[in-house]
Amino acid sequence: MSSFGIHQIGAVRIEKEACYIEIYQTYTPGLRHIENFSHVYVLWWISMRDNPKDRSNMLATPPRLTKPVETGVFSSRSPARPNPIGLTKVKLLKVENNRLYIDRIDAIDGTPVLDVKPYLPGDSIPVDEIKLPEWFEHLKNK
Amino acid sequence: MSSFGIHQIGAVRIEKEACYIEIYQTYTPGLRHIENFSHVYVLWWISMRDNPKDRSNMLATPPRLTKPVETGVFSSRSPARPNPIGLTKVKLLKVENNRLYIDRIDAIDGTPVLDVKPYLPGDSIPVDEIKLPEWFEHLKNK
Repeated sequence: MSSFGIHQIGAVRIEKEACYIEIYQTYTPGLRHIENFSHVYVLWWISMRDNPKDRSNMLATPPRLTKPVETGVFSSRSPARPNPIGLTKVKLLKVENNRLYIDRIDAIDGTPVLDVKPYLPGDSIPVDEIKLPEWFEHLKNK
Repeated sequence: MSSFGIHQIGAVRIEKEACYIEIYQTYTPGLRHIENFSHVYVLWWISMRDNPKDRSNMLATPPRLTKPVETGVFSSRSPARPNPIGLTKVKLLKVENNRLYIDRIDAIDGTPVLDVKPYLPGDSIPVDEIKLPEWFEHLKNK
């Protein structure tokens, strides 16, 4: 089995009044022009699930369903998955030096950040064209 | 610097008439119910850019611009980036056993696949709410 090396380029910071992505000094030249984007993807490492048990998990039970269902892990956004890479689309509120202030992220303070990518029009699918299993249909009305 | 271990769960297959994601046998139980989604994200390893030179690259020149501009790598989708993780939103055409047939992917035959995640309504941003630098504005009319 092939294995690949991933490095931490920054960290998620959660404070009382704000949350931001802190990019380490080595990588800050890579932020040039990022303040021109309204949204970016953050790829992060789900450290708390980086263990053999969670990484061999193949099934998931999505939370908050009235009728629970056990789906495959690739049919879910469960954090317990073979490669615990988190993917979150965030709104960029402001950029100050090596800090990207964002609206929210489903990661805890100190979480390693792996990559930041701009959100482009091609990433957007009109909601009425997105097909989902019935147990996720309620997400369309959020 | 922290380093994390990523494993290959499958591969991109490009054939004359079709392209698909092949998921390795160990991971196929994770595909349960995936045929109910119209779109998924594929995370893949950009093998051809997994070298010290490309991974230390901090600037990028987006292709096909009439007036070229040198932006930060995190303001671009350039494959030469510190962690060469590719992220592509694909349309799921059909699922046959461990094969996810898709419309297209910007990866070559044999590319390692790291993760598959369902595309959910929360991933969609109305195009008129996406702010971009002027050199990417033409992407909105595609």
